[in-house]
Amino acid sequence: MNEDEIEEMTEIALEFYDQIKEGEVPKLDIPTRTKNNIEFDEGSKVWKYGSKKSTRSAKSIRGAYRLLKLLYTIHFFKSQLEEDRSSTLRELYYISENWENAKFREQQESDKLIEDLEIITDLKREDFHIRPEEDGATIVGPLKLKEKTRRGKREIHCQKDVGEGGYQIPNNPDRIEFLDHDADFVIAIETGGMRDRLVENGFDENFNAIIVHLKGQPARSTRRITKRLHNELNLPVAVFTDGDPWSYRIFSSVSYGSIKSAHLSEYMAIPEAEFIGVCPSDIVEYDLPTDELSEQDIKALESELSDPRFDTDFWRDEINLQLDLGKKSEQQSLAKYGLDYVTETYLPEKLSEKNII
Amino acid sequence: MNEDEIEEMTEIALEFYDQIKEGEVPKLDIPTRTKNNIEFDEGSKVWKYGSKKSTRSAKSIRGAYRLLKLLYTIHFFKSQLEEDRSSTLRELYYISENWENAKFREQQESDKLIEDLEIITDLKREDFHIRPEEDGATIVGPLKLKEKTRRGKREIHCQKDVGEGGYQIPNNPDRIEFLDHDADFVIAIETGGMRDRLVENGFDENFNAIIVHLKGQPARSTRRITKRLHNELNLPVAVFTDGDPWSYRIFSSVSYGSIKSAHLSEYMAIPEAEFIGVCPSDIVEYDLPTDELSEQDIKALESELSDPRFDTDFWRDEINLQLDLGKKSEQQSLAKYGLDYVTETYLPEKLSEKNII
Repeated sequence: MNEDEIEEMTEIALEFYDQIKEGEVPKLDIPTRTKNNIEFDEGSKVWKYGSKKSTRSAKSIRGAYRLLKLLYTIHFFKSQLEEDRSSTLRELYYISENWENAKFREQQESDKLIEDLEIITDLKREDFHIRPEEDGATIVGPLKLKEKTRRGKREIHCQKDVGEGGYQIPNNPDRIEFLDHDADFVIAIETGGMRDRLVENGFDENFNAIIVHLKGQPARSTRRITKRLHNELNLPVAVFTDGDPWSYRIFSSVSYGSIKSAHLSEYMAIPEAEFIGVCPSDIVEYDLPTDELSEQDIKALESELSDPRFDTDFWRDEINLQLDLGKKSEQQSLAKYGLDYVTETYLPEKLSEKNII
Repeated sequence: MNEDEIEEMTEIALEFYDQIKEGEVPKLDIPTRTKNNIEFDEGSKVWKYGSKKSTRSAKSIRGAYRLLKLLYTIHFFKSQLEEDRSSTLRELYYISENWENAKFREQQESDKLIEDLEIITDLKREDFHIRPEEDGATIVGPLKLKEKTRRGKREIHCQKDVGEGGYQIPNNPDRIEFLDHDADFVIAIETGGMRDRLVENGFDENFNAIIVHLKGQPARSTRRITKRLHNELNLPVAVFTDGDPWSYRIFSSVSYGSIKSAHLSEYMAIPEAEFIGVCPSDIVEYDLPTDELSEQDIKALESELSDPRFDTDFWRDEINLQLDLGKKSEQQSLAKYGLDYVTETYLPEKLSEKNII
């Protein structure tokens, strides 16, 4: 059980062993995780780390402690995998209380070490059985799946076997197998209010749509299951958010991945995902109720103008228009035209513009 | 359908009509919603509004606008109920875009008006089919329920028919009927990390416990379903949180209700709920890893010392001890003793202290 993962990790310890045996100071090379070392991979259409490397070496005391902590962590993960247990990022930090010199000073340190380990081993923290605190969101739609839980397998239809709250995405969605579906596309929605609106209006039934609630900046598990729905079921993904710079970042994290987790882009990013609004141009075209942009909003928009991920005609035009308007709008502002407008008019228009329906 | 609710609301409009016919200026009396007008009701053991009243009268322009907005809202709710639709607090704010003089200037205004309407009619916003943005949390445990959804009834067992994420509590848990259970108590847990720990360790199976995830300050739907589990199934409720002043407020909102929604105390508050930690005295007894209290923590603790809801020997002693220690601890700090300590040692000790097991 979990033998491959254990071998990958033990490899690192063996390498240190060999280095020491050869009379070398143990060290590790890791890709540098900064904006400057991020490159667009034309093949997979996602952002990945470039060739710049940082070295963690036991030459300095600080470096030696880092490698010690890495070894303790590998040791803990090894027994965790052998016993088929799991733990949270926070628990790992507390578990280190008894590791003496290898004790983490703060959780940031253990979180970062796990990212290192993901990059070195080419595994994901889910493979080490490490969970976040954040919880995933929910799914509703014409999809039947099988989830492998610790208590056995569960077959769940995401319309017929769930309440109005929907199917709760587990921490590790790779334990899910898609059994059957009747969907034409996936729609990923930022706010709970709008997700509830689509469910109430039967949007998933009328349009054969799988509704994924992003719940603000989406958790890793939410991004992962959306990616799998896209790849394995060949479904287009539409992202529907508020019309402000923070929401564009939500779209970008679904679509392009983030700098911090560029090593996971292929696992989570969906470069083909389509943004269907609310766009700044919708504010004009649909005459939506607005709020003034705040100073932070303006700064965030300006920073997006210099972000390579937003370096397209569409985004430049939309962001510049928004800066001119000085306004932002929320998804729910469509309620100005009544409770059915979003599902009967706005979404059908936007989805057919993108050739999704 | 929904006839009683419609009648309750229409009553208000009829009253205005009668007042105008009598040559009076229309007005409404509403209990004052401040700390000074909150009283402990010995009978129900919850905090309720006292006898102080505020008057909303059309004598002033501001008051006239308020009553106009109230009438527009009642009109909207009436058609919403007749069509068996529902909407979010945010949508209501946007719907008012077309109400001309009755348009809400900000959502706070419409939220407050709905609270007024709850108090006047003795109904709950769920009865008007108004949903919040916040979503409820999840349940896992030996409980079989039936949820009445718009798409028909769903029978769900909260262990056998759900994935590891659990059963997602719907916005209006009064649409749930409890069918069958095998539970001895309910344990309500603040953090997702600890909720996952209990599920992984099979705590719900080993102790016949219904695990409710509070997810920080609990949503109204989470408090309501916990209250119903307590009342209808006669189950004791244990609340398990971090050991800091913000977490004591979480306990207090489960147990005593809040000032803002004192009119709903009987609907949501569980005066018999037991706080099982993390207590400041646990920090000493279990030698837990700690963080320093921040200035805000200290202020919050001091404010709790003057809060009537914390005016008991237990809370005075614990809060004073915490101020002396200058420390706080999280639930997950119990991981210092390994991943099973919380379910095999800590919780059994605390639950038997409170005679729950």
